[in-house]
Amino acid sequence: MKRLWYGGDYNPEQWDPGVWKEDVALMRQAGVNVVTLGVFSWSSLEPAPGRYEFGWLDQVLDLLHDGGVSVDLATPTASPPPWFSRLHPEALPVTADGVRLTHGSRDTYCACAPAYRDAARGIARALAERYHDHPALAMWHVHNEYGTTCHCSLAAARFREWLQERYGSLDRLNEAWTTAFWSQGYGDWTEIEPPRKTQYLVNPTQFLDYRRFWSDELLAAFLEQKAELRTFSELPITTNFVFGGWVPVNHAQWAAAVDVVAIDDYPGRTDIGAEEQTAFAADLARSWAGGGSWLLMEQAAGTLNDGRRLRAKEPGRMARHSLSHIARGSQGALFFQWRASRGGSEMYHSAMVPHAGPDSRIFREVAELGAILPQLADVAESKVEADVAILWDVECWWAMQGTHLPSSALDYLGAVRSAHRHFWRAGVTVDFAAPTADLSSYTTVVVPSLYLVSDEAAAALTAYVERGGQLVVGYFSGIVDPDLRVRLGGYPGAFTDLLGVRIEEFHPLPIGGEIALASGGRGRVWSEDVRAVSAEVIDRYAGGVLDGKPAITRHALGAGVAWYVSTELDDETAARVLELSTSPVETVRRRLGDTTWTFLINHGDTEVDVPGELVAGELPVPPGGYAVVRSR
Amino acid sequence: MKRLWYGGDYNPEQWDPGVWKEDVALMRQAGVNVVTLGVFSWSSLEPAPGRYEFGWLDQVLDLLHDGGVSVDLATPTASPPPWFSRLHPEALPVTADGVRLTHGSRDTYCACAPAYRDAARGIARALAERYHDHPALAMWHVHNEYGTTCHCSLAAARFREWLQERYGSLDRLNEAWTTAFWSQGYGDWTEIEPPRKTQYLVNPTQFLDYRRFWSDELLAAFLEQKAELRTFSELPITTNFVFGGWVPVNHAQWAAAVDVVAIDDYPGRTDIGAEEQTAFAADLARSWAGGGSWLLMEQAAGTLNDGRRLRAKEPGRMARHSLSHIARGSQGALFFQWRASRGGSEMYHSAMVPHAGPDSRIFREVAELGAILPQLADVAESKVEADVAILWDVECWWAMQGTHLPSSALDYLGAVRSAHRHFWRAGVTVDFAAPTADLSSYTTVVVPSLYLVSDEAAAALTAYVERGGQLVVGYFSGIVDPDLRVRLGGYPGAFTDLLGVRIEEFHPLPIGGEIALASGGRGRVWSEDVRAVSAEVIDRYAGGVLDGKPAITRHALGAGVAWYVSTELDDETAARVLELSTSPVETVRRRLGDTTWTFLINHGDTEVDVPGELVAGELPVPPGGYAVVRSR
Amino acid sequence: MKRLWYGGDYNPEQWDPGVWKEDVALMRQAGVNVVTLGVFSWSSLEPAPGRYEFGWLDQVLDLLHDGGVSVDLATPTASPPPWFSRLHPEALPVTADGVRLTHGSRDTYCACAPAYRDAARGIARALAERYHDHPALAMWHVHNEYGTTCHCSLAAARFREWLQERYGSLDRLNEAWTTAFWSQGYGDWTEIEPPRKTQYLVNPTQFLDYRRFWSDELLAAFLEQKAELRTFSELPITTNFVFGGWVPVNHAQWAAAVDVVAIDDYPGRTDIGAEEQTAFAADLARSWAGGGSWLLMEQAAGTLNDGRRLRAKEPGRMARHSLSHIARGSQGALFFQWRASRGGSEMYHSAMVPHAGPDSRIFREVAELGAILPQLADVAESKVEADVAILWDVECWWAMQGTHLPSSALDYLGAVRSAHRHFWRAGVTVDFAAPTADLSSYTTVVVPSLYLVSDEAAAALTAYVERGGQLVVGYFSGIVDPDLRVRLGGYPGAFTDLLGVRIEEFHPLPIGGEIALASGGRGRVWSEDVRAVSAEVIDRYAGGVLDGKPAITRHALGAGVAWYVSTELDDETAARVLELSTSPVETVRRRLGDTTWTFLINHGDTEVDVPGELVAGELPVPPGGYAVVRSR
Repeated sequence: MKRLWYGGDYNPEQWDPGVWKEDVALMRQAGVNVVTLGVFSWSSLEPAPGRYEFGWLDQVLDLLHDGGVSVDLATPTASPPPWFSRLHPEALPVTADGVRLTHGSRDTYCACAPAYRDAARGIARALAERYHDHPALAMWHVHNEYGTTCHCSLAAARFREWLQERYGSLDRLNEAWTTAFWSQGYGDWTEIEPPRKTQYLVNPTQFLDYRRFWSDELLAAFLEQKAELRTFSELPITTNFVFGGWVPVNHAQWAAAVDVVAIDDYPGRTDIGAEEQTAFAADLARSWAGGGSWLLMEQAAGTLNDGRRLRAKEPGRMARHSLSHIARGSQGALFFQWRASRGGSEMYHSAMVPHAGPDSRIFREVAELGAILPQLADVAESKVEADVAILWDVECWWAMQGTHLPSSALDYLGAVRSAHRHFWRAGVTVDFAAPTADLSSYTTVVVPSLYLVSDEAAAALTAYVERGGQLVVGYFSGIVDPDLRVRLGGYPGAFTDLLGVRIEEFHPLPIGGEIALASGGRGRVWSEDVRAVSAEVIDRYAGGVLDGKPAITRHALGAGVAWYVSTELDDETAARVLELSTSPVETVRRRLGDTTWTFLINHGDTEVDVPGELVAGELPVPPGGYAVVRSR
Repeated sequence: MKRLWYGGDYNPEQWDPGVWKEDVALMRQAGVNVVTLGVFSWSSLEPAPGRYEFGWLDQVLDLLHDGGVSVDLATPTASPPPWFSRLHPEALPVTADGVRLTHGSRDTYCACAPAYRDAARGIARALAERYHDHPALAMWHVHNEYGTTCHCSLAAARFREWLQERYGSLDRLNEAWTTAFWSQGYGDWTEIEPPRKTQYLVNPTQFLDYRRFWSDELLAAFLEQKAELRTFSELPITTNFVFGGWVPVNHAQWAAAVDVVAIDDYPGRTDIGAEEQTAFAADLARSWAGGGSWLLMEQAAGTLNDGRRLRAKEPGRMARHSLSHIARGSQGALFFQWRASRGGSEMYHSAMVPHAGPDSRIFREVAELGAILPQLADVAESKVEADVAILWDVECWWAMQGTHLPSSALDYLGAVRSAHRHFWRAGVTVDFAAPTADLSSYTTVVVPSLYLVSDEAAAALTAYVERGGQLVVGYFSGIVDPDLRVRLGGYPGAFTDLLGVRIEEFHPLPIGGEIALASGGRGRVWSEDVRAVSAEVIDRYAGGVLDGKPAITRHALGAGVAWYVSTELDDETAARVLELSTSPVETVRRRLGDTTWTFLINHGDTEVDVPGELVAGELPVPPGGYAVVRSR
Repeated sequence: MKRLWYGGDYNPEQWDPGVWKEDVALMRQAGVNVVTLGVFSWSSLEPAPGRYEFGWLDQVLDLLHDGGVSVDLATPTASPPPWFSRLHPEALPVTADGVRLTHGSRDTYCACAPAYRDAARGIARALAERYHDHPALAMWHVHNEYGTTCHCSLAAARFREWLQERYGSLDRLNEAWTTAFWSQGYGDWTEIEPPRKTQYLVNPTQFLDYRRFWSDELLAAFLEQKAELRTFSELPITTNFVFGGWVPVNHAQWAAAVDVVAIDDYPGRTDIGAEEQTAFAADLARSWAGGGSWLLMEQAAGTLNDGRRLRAKEPGRMARHSLSHIARGSQGALFFQWRASRGGSEMYHSAMVPHAGPDSRIFREVAELGAILPQLADVAESKVEADVAILWDVECWWAMQGTHLPSSALDYLGAVRSAHRHFWRAGVTVDFAAPTADLSSYTTVVVPSLYLVSDEAAAALTAYVERGGQLVVGYFSGIVDPDLRVRLGGYPGAFTDLLGVRIEEFHPLPIGGEIALASGGRGRVWSEDVRAVSAEVIDRYAGGVLDGKPAITRHALGAGVAWYVSTELDDETAARVLELSTSPVETVRRRLGDTTWTFLINHGDTEVDVPGELVAGELPVPPGGYAVVRSR
């Protein structure tokens, strides 16, 4: 049965049983067909060590099943109960400056603590054992938003084991970390510590490795729970990826370990940037899913959060965001959470049923969208079409979050988002790709600030150009190898021959400053003293110490072309270089066999018409409206 | 004998005995009739545990008495001596992130530490025993500016006892704290910790309760000392309340425990805002004193401190501030401190005798004011007249200092100060009142952002309107109960029927942003999607997503009227709504029998005349001048 | 043999031995005649406790000697190896808020830890023993940039010993620290702690004494190493002074303990301010060297660092900076470091051989300068000429870094830099002098904000004026004695009679604000209510509460004149008062016998000519160029 999932996190333990029946009735009214259950229920399910109380959950599962609502059953391991912290104080996390955190929020555990890992496996096994054959069950949801790290001595011990695995010998580690600088040479594995608070700049490779380690360690924790669940159940197992300013796990790697790639998406902008961020998150999720389908596990029904205030979503905006996700590959649209909490830290987190109750604009829009989604069920198996890929490498991001760089304005995520924005503003759908991915299907590949690059990735990009690809490489690329060791002899190191340029010196711009280009464009963040060795100069710096020096170059290589852009371009100049024109209509095409579905979301202020058969929405598409059109 | 108190903190231990005689002579010259003695004298009085050195204090008390200066004798418990910290390291306070503080400042104790409480009672008893019948003694002053909190394990243990007292059962606590969210359900009292540093958002009710707890715990510490003093003496016992951006005690509650309400007042503004803040502090103090008289215990003689620099008070400004306090109910005007310190952390804290010595503008103005105050002694028993009350609830402030709110711009104190400012700018004196106070004597009651409100308070406000009162309720009111649990079914929760409006969604404004009103006014901070159910619409939002929606409403109920203002109004619009006109003359009327005293302080630039008999000051009142006028 | 030193830090342990030979060849090509070796080599020299590996260093020293490069051999004690921290965790430093730092950066030791001091002496002795007669050796370099402090209990114990030494008795300490304020009276030495994190404002004299203590303690650590080296070697022994926003040692005092005053100089400005900062650092270094020669031990070859980004130095700028140092007394120009690191925290720290290799602008400019310096060898013994001195006292700076002052805008370093800048903008070379220095050779002495001043210093300045000197004293001077105790009776305390003014009240300006002067000038930061007792008024405040009050005064005393400037003047007004005219040419004159060398560095945009014999550079001096001219 083809269908799109629709629903959200359901936390019945916050409500009297009397509310549960109303919940199921409202879910039916809203077209909800799945809920995520139990994400934060550990203290309700296991109120004392080993004492399980499953009765209430039995009842809820039965009620949901009777109401035709499937269940994505969660292991509640992201928030251990207070008794756990009392019994295992050594499992409370420690910050980089040595503060042992206290219970009273969520995620107060160190995943390197054996007591935590045992307890997590235990509750996962108990849930699997009890519910694996419940008819409501559709999926397993392990944990919540993996990403909690720690600097305690248990973590230090696991870090050392991971390093032994990675480097084999201390000699190799000393080389990779350049410990000859500042007398950091290690003579014994036990001397190595996490990058805790120290006197001055921390070793950047140690810092990067600690992120790599935690991604792997958390993945091991996930896989342990997955194994417990798999013992009893063949249903899909997932976890919800979270992606924000700080990303402690490597989602591209993790994707191989989950049965369904699922993401949470909470844009941090409240203007049109929220739409662009929605598309960005969805395109990333699709790349993690290998271009296939994935699932939007959480979004907010009624508000956008810029970190300082919650802005109410305008009428229709929630539907547009949901449609954008589905267009870009999501198997549905889920929310956190079903019913707004009465109390607690997230009582103002918007929900499908707000504090005002079902007699509310928000619930009415939720129900409207629930009524529309079944019309789109056919889309689920089609593939999103994209001719352009943008490279994305979380290790490069981590590497650029260190404190050792020539400018604090360098921002890997910012550079990638800029690249994505240029295409989004033109209504063009793009994929993301890993540095060593097969790029042969793309006409154009954009490589924003690929500071850290392996020899293999550099070779793959060169091969892509030689075979006819068009490559656009951004500033501060190719500089270091995966050990964060500079590729000597002139920047951009790994890409010198590919791009036909040589750079001796960086010219980071003043923070907030700009540099003029001869074409009239402007650069931000960064500039470089570029010498075109075998490349053609497309644009030059104008004025200042770099006056007349190359800013943008083009290098024919084999059957293809490699561009180099040595600064962060303004949107207009970038559009000119990428040959893009602006369109206020977000357009995504999906194909299955000879059928094409076109999703149109109109962010402009005039209506838009397209040929084809209307599947959902409205034609012509009014401002703020959407349409899904089928054609052959 | 009727008189106003005049004087300040006197710290003779900082000076050679030779200076003491000069001090008393200068005090006489300045009209000083009281000094607060011994606030920071613990290490001088008890230089080693149990070894008392009272000789110097005997001498000072005798000298003062001979000079006709009364003494407000302090227990020095706000600053334990170094030996105490060495002997009782467990009594040093611990921050929320676990840092155990060190001696070397002041207030380095945890009031939950038994050793501290014992030592504090001990020195209080010793002072009472020795000085209770000294003829100079006029009042006891316990401690200084109660407000020091701590997060140590001793505090944790006391917090748990307090919670057991408040909630009776864990079930009730779990409900009040909404611990079902994020798996925080407590199964044992010992699992509960203070809101120390944790991984992410702290439980908001736990946070609020920790403030309630500390207010009660510090009150218990005060009452213990009071009991020691009372054993020996029937003189009034007070402590000086301090009120700033962070207020850890509930002064309205504490007021019942002191014989005299006393406050310290250090405005943080240096422009005319300092005058408004002075009036605000004085009006609050009067409300704590139940409308009766109170005492300005500390102010600065020569400077205003905006937290970044000390601004010199202009000539006459100290007198105007002092008069404003006395007009609003203070029994006098005291300063910190008599003589400016030569060294130490507050060596630039201004004083009655500055570093320059008595041959100085500051001392001359001090002496001038000292000569005037006896003329005002008659005023002391009269009552301040006010027709308007503003609601003030410190628990609401605490509740809005949590991190869980929909906007970081929400500011309870700011909203209350705005309301007070509107009346102050019109020269109208207002009272403050607790939410459950008897409001029947007021024609108008203003309720700024009463986010947290009990059922009782909501009923009292409704009754006030039904009986003919005019109520003006501000945005974000009525939302939660005292457990911080949302009142469901639509905002403003507890006030929905009273105001005749229903709100489904908040629209917090961008930080620093504004919203236009149809009347031409502007709103800041906040807006709401208001539906007028039975209320009349007085003003509407103009433009944006709320265009045409109600901004200000008016609801006739019983014999009265309830207004709702759904945003933070600009001063002009607020004045229009409240029917206030601007006046640069601060005017306070006081009555006793058929006698009325009018205090006029002229902040404008033209002179002002009034009929009546001049008691003090000048008529007509020149710019920057003041007058006290008596009439029948 | 007269010569200027040229070279930099050489860290061969970061490179394969194959690179070492290329290094020496390139050094010869660049005119390098000295390298600093081993600054961060501890873990390479002593990879396990007591196990020395000197083989590689033997080889490097031999190679350098064969290449004609002398060696400044460093003790590597600024960065202990990881094994040291593992064996001696008590020697890891602790922050003021109690965080014990971890290894993984540099300077992770507490110099009060006996284990550290033993280990440091040990490696110093081992190096001295092995290399004292190596023919390459020219100088010893102890440690690196002394300045690491700590708040651990070992430091507390040493602090107490230092205090006993300084004060003799607790009574004297209690008086000096004004412990009568806030009940801080100490009854036992063991009660005293470092100024760790405390509840509120820290005792300012305790804070100041902790800086004094650390300067002395680090000096003792230096002297211990010096003694070890001196046992084996008579060569000069130095350490590189570092000077930034925080200066934990008293360089003027330390200068007596080193054989050569050496400084590191990294300007934090990237505009012309970098040139002014260069001159400032050089003039300070010369003052520490008693007016004689000193050595620029470190600078950056290719970049300026404003703390947020590395700006590339324009062509010629590195040479101009180097020449400015040499003009002002440096015996040469050295860099950190020879070859840019491939990895580690400072991989983007620019170097003489950049990542791009010797085929680079930077290396070419390094080699050009290396070819020029031998022409200037004659200059080395001449003396810099200056008629003006600016007073500099690091204790005054420390005193003004406390939290007790009347304005957070008070900035001792800023005031001194302003004074220096006024002369620099006029192309006039100035000396710095200690408050008690012999000033008789100067026509003018400028005293910026000498907040803390001893009786001796005040007397010396008065004597200077009486004997005919012209003294210009800045605001907030003369206020406290070395115990930070206010000089009572009216500001400016120690200078009241000297300046003929009396001040009762400070008028700190709003942060960022200005005050107008009658002359049309403007003041910043500060103003005062000045009464001219016996001084003549030169300029007055205009407008505001100080309207018409004196701003600048002039007092004839004996054969001289003492000016007082009660605010921070804008550059133009300061130039007018100091009778300076602007010149874009940095000019330094040096004399030996009847020979004068004039250094000219042209920061303007027109060429400049002077008579005399060209020694180096170009005549006329082009914009951005320089010239050294000899005359008799």
